[in-house]
Amino acid sequence: MLYEIKPFEAFKVGDRATFTKTIGEADILLFAAISGDNYSVHVDEEYAKTTRFGGRIAHGMLTASMLSATNGMLLQQPGGISVAQTLRFLKPVYPGDTITARSEVVEILVEKRRLRCRTWCTNQRGEIVIEGEAIEQKDVH
Amino acid sequence: MLYEIKPFEAFKVGDRATFTKTIGEADILLFAAISGDNYSVHVDEEYAKTTRFGGRIAHGMLTASMLSATNGMLLQQPGGISVAQTLRFLKPVYPGDTITARSEVVEILVEKRRLRCRTWCTNQRGEIVIEGEAIEQKDVH
Amino acid sequence: MLYEIKPFEAFKVGDRATFTKTIGEADILLFAAISGDNYSVHVDEEYAKTTRFGGRIAHGMLTASMLSATNGMLLQQPGGISVAQTLRFLKPVYPGDTITARSEVVEILVEKRRLRCRTWCTNQRGEIVIEGEAIEQKDVH
Amino acid sequence: MLYEIKPFEAFKVGDRATFTKTIGEADILLFAAISGDNYSVHVDEEYAKTTRFGGRIAHGMLTASMLSATNGMLLQQPGGISVAQTLRFLKPVYPGDTITARSEVVEILVEKRRLRCRTWCTNQRGEIVIEGEAIEQKDVH
Repeated sequence: MLYEIKPFEAFKVGDRATFTKTIGEADILLFAAISGDNYSVHVDEEYAKTTRFGGRIAHGMLTASMLSATNGMLLQQPGGISVAQTLRFLKPVYPGDTITARSEVVEILVEKRRLRCRTWCTNQRGEIVIEGEAIEQKDVH
Repeated sequence: MLYEIKPFEAFKVGDRATFTKTIGEADILLFAAISGDNYSVHVDEEYAKTTRFGGRIAHGMLTASMLSATNGMLLQQPGGISVAQTLRFLKPVYPGDTITARSEVVEILVEKRRLRCRTWCTNQRGEIVIEGEAIEQKDVH
Repeated sequence: MLYEIKPFEAFKVGDRATFTKTIGEADILLFAAISGDNYSVHVDEEYAKTTRFGGRIAHGMLTASMLSATNGMLLQQPGGISVAQTLRFLKPVYPGDTITARSEVVEILVEKRRLRCRTWCTNQRGEIVIEGEAIEQKDVH
Repeated sequence: MLYEIKPFEAFKVGDRATFTKTIGEADILLFAAISGDNYSVHVDEEYAKTTRFGGRIAHGMLTASMLSATNGMLLQQPGGISVAQTLRFLKPVYPGDTITARSEVVEILVEKRRLRCRTWCTNQRGEIVIEGEAIEQKDVH
């Protein structure tokens, strides 16, 4: 298909993208498959019940993966790429939690033709569970 | 199962963990499911051929997910948690590439009882495709 | 493997096939991967609770995919192909619902060597959730 | 998250949505898992080589599932639902084919508050592989 490319010059501070989904056990299973991460707090309910979390929690990087979606939505199809991402894991995410990921342009780095974005995830109670920054680049041709 | 817990005091600079796997099209498909990220350079081969990458590439956060595994291996089962992660995406990863993720303790943050770790991924040619740092915490009970 | 082919001439009106399975959250996640469909009523439980459905529902085409199975079972292995399918989505399907798909020959289209089939899906309460017609063709060699 | 709802009144003939992805073996495997359809022409390469297709082909309903995505994109988040879908399977889709799905409003059914949409899928050579119609409804609250 022919894409209509949003050029770098069209981006401005405040541009944002958002995506919400409910994270379930199947997400945790598939993330374990992809990542190879079978850490007990994610896959062993009996153990997880003994921790301060009280039950299995999603991998932090699983929740963070939704920022990959919002970074892409923000860049718009096609022609963008992630250059860097920072993440702080602030609160646990449980199976059944509904997470909203958001990416928002906070600075246009004109010389390098990059966007600095605030990226964060909240749960269904509005609590920030992950926050960080992404550096995105348009123009990959 | 009863885990034998490695206490925080037992960690030292230079402790490391490593995990290698070949990333395939199925990983990209499942990561799209989890993340909601269907960006064209990951899922549209015809478009991806027109970019400087020459074909579809894995989501950066997919490759980075392997650091979730090595961070966990480094902490040893159970009782650890990721506090923060930084990532720089340096080179594209293609379906069929074999990625080695590594986490290595570079500093013991005694007061906060945390570990600062260098984390990086290399491909089958030894090129670093992702690098960054993780802050890991032991003792989640 | 060597298949024993059921020839077109052996089919008759009333031939039918049926398949029952419980649709779960993992089906919804995987269907989102295949289809690229992350519509909120399927993936965002908090939003879905505010709709008249009261919670997440399966994609209509996910449930309909089971008709692909019963159409194939009806044709028997091997040598058949679907020519057309119509679908009316009558009731929502929730994670945990057990769906029975059925395909039944209602007309033999002798000249075109095709079968016209009634196809429908019911839930565990016997309610029809999807109904439509399939046109199936035998002999693809 | 709070969605900004596109009201029914804002839709007009010619509104369209499009989504492109490359269909691979993993899609076929996962679609078989969801649908229960293990028909030989989709899963048995040795048999499929003996058919006029010359190799495994994707389930027609798998390719059609991408119309679920474009119907949803066309309706925009959130509040839409599919009422009906017709499909004609015109050409085989092979693993590795890149499929573009499109949904386009062709009629506004004002009384029923529905949209009649042309829906079709093309491959990387621009050939139409599936075509049909969808009836979509906005306002599910």
